[in-house]
Amino acid sequence: MKAIGIDLGGTHLRLAIVSERGHVRLSRKVVVGSNRSPEKIVKLISNQLKLLKKESNIKGRCAVGMGVPGIVSSRKGVVYASPYYPQWRNFTFAGKLRRKISYPVVIDNDANMIALGEMWKGAARGWDNFIMMTLGTGIGGALVINGKIFHGNNGFTGEVGHMVIERNGPSCACGSRGCFETLASATAMARMAREMGVKGLSGKKSKLTLELASLAGKGNKKAKRIFKEFGTNLGIGIASLVNVTGIQKIVLGGGLIGARSLFLSAVKKELKKRTYSKTFSDIEIRCAQLGDDAGILGSALTAFEKASRTAR
Amino acid sequence: MKAIGIDLGGTHLRLAIVSERGHVRLSRKVVVGSNRSPEKIVKLISNQLKLLKKESNIKGRCAVGMGVPGIVSSRKGVVYASPYYPQWRNFTFAGKLRRKISYPVVIDNDANMIALGEMWKGAARGWDNFIMMTLGTGIGGALVINGKIFHGNNGFTGEVGHMVIERNGPSCACGSRGCFETLASATAMARMAREMGVKGLSGKKSKLTLELASLAGKGNKKAKRIFKEFGTNLGIGIASLVNVTGIQKIVLGGGLIGARSLFLSAVKKELKKRTYSKTFSDIEIRCAQLGDDAGILGSALTAFEKASRTAR
Repeated sequence: MKAIGIDLGGTHLRLAIVSERGHVRLSRKVVVGSNRSPEKIVKLISNQLKLLKKESNIKGRCAVGMGVPGIVSSRKGVVYASPYYPQWRNFTFAGKLRRKISYPVVIDNDANMIALGEMWKGAARGWDNFIMMTLGTGIGGALVINGKIFHGNNGFTGEVGHMVIERNGPSCACGSRGCFETLASATAMARMAREMGVKGLSGKKSKLTLELASLAGKGNKKAKRIFKEFGTNLGIGIASLVNVTGIQKIVLGGGLIGARSLFLSAVKKELKKRTYSKTFSDIEIRCAQLGDDAGILGSALTAFEKASRTAR
Repeated sequence: MKAIGIDLGGTHLRLAIVSERGHVRLSRKVVVGSNRSPEKIVKLISNQLKLLKKESNIKGRCAVGMGVPGIVSSRKGVVYASPYYPQWRNFTFAGKLRRKISYPVVIDNDANMIALGEMWKGAARGWDNFIMMTLGTGIGGALVINGKIFHGNNGFTGEVGHMVIERNGPSCACGSRGCFETLASATAMARMAREMGVKGLSGKKSKLTLELASLAGKGNKKAKRIFKEFGTNLGIGIASLVNVTGIQKIVLGGGLIGARSLFLSAVKKELKKRTYSKTFSDIEIRCAQLGDDAGILGSALTAFEKASRTAR
């Protein structure tokens, strides 16, 4: 049996055929156009699937897993809302796609799929309980408990980025204030750079953290301070998560981990201050290893698991 | 089969015989003396157990469950540290007690036992996933997932009270700053009362929240503001927990819930601000129903479960 892992991002759609041992056999990556209606995306995926099948010549049973950015009920196969697909409201994505492609389909939040991918083949191998955080524009997060994504009361999953770490802190798009992701993300670093008046930046949003890292590497004090502050805030958030869950295993992923040498010591300093010594000594932080493949692999793993449950 | 549920507090030791249906048949309550060495406490419990057995005339199989304040590994039966029993360090409590009384013994953190008691016979009946918080001098907490206490990586459980909600907030005894329990507990209310110079208080620590509630009931503006601020902070912490875990079911217990009419609307206001509307509409807060019996019942339930696992 084969699985097709799909990773639907804000810009690209990636699909891959994955073996039961977790090898990516063949993959495709296309840009998602500007028409983002539910029907259009379902059609795009089904067309790409056809091309993938034709190219690979796969036969027999096949299952599909897909990671989607946004608020997703995996159990119901529904996307409630997505920052990149504003037209989607209570969209029964799994069901619609299944009817179109006649394979079983399972969906989940993209951060969850990434966590499962890292557990299967990456940084979290051998861990049953861990917290995954992806550091980028915001903070994505997943709780893995007993080897499974923990879905709360209604099939939803945690929004780690919207844990409050400064009750009267910066406004967050979610309506709250001082959320973790307003203080430990690329967005937070952009704000700090603005406030401090860092010189030598091109002003391109997508390049900001790379440019800051390069400045910091050259000894720029303000840039170094921004990474330190980022690390301190990240440490505060991780300490809270460790204290709340009793889980001391952490995987950090996302674009920002490339600059980890600039902030990891600040993270550890903060963790030492804010956890009991017994807890601190058990904390283990690993960096994600699979890059873009993590979501694909986690989606495929979810598809295999669903298929094996259905077959029983 | 019968279970003996034990609740070891900072001041009292309570023991009760509990039926498999969750009825408290007979109970004893004694003051814990000032000699609090491990040996002394084990002896106290075993003596009290003998008296209980004699009085009740129970025969046949029996299992013991006990809630202990502090950092406990339920899996290992070890108490690592306890605020009320400072001499206890890595104390293998379950093993020592078992040898003395020759019944199987299971221990866990007291807040966990309270959560299980409320699930079995109290406010959380019918809930598989919920967060329990006990509001008192600090904030005790438990995560119940799939009907079981969630124990993190090393058999520890969450320390909800040490989630940070204001990164540079008041110092906490744990070494951190701005922990949830520095801002939403009786201790926090005492600090606010001091800072605001509330008049008409006796100065007795144990009576402070009752006196404040009475003042607020009579229209005292400062006392009312303290309860509102407490509710706001409580709401911030609950919003964080809901966002992190995806669990929207909450049970509040502890001494302070008697004054809930003074703070629950502030809690709800804050939750509305700090969670997505879909999440907010699913939030359900219940108040604990069992008072002192919760810990006893949860301990007994844990004892029954351990006995049935062992018997298999």
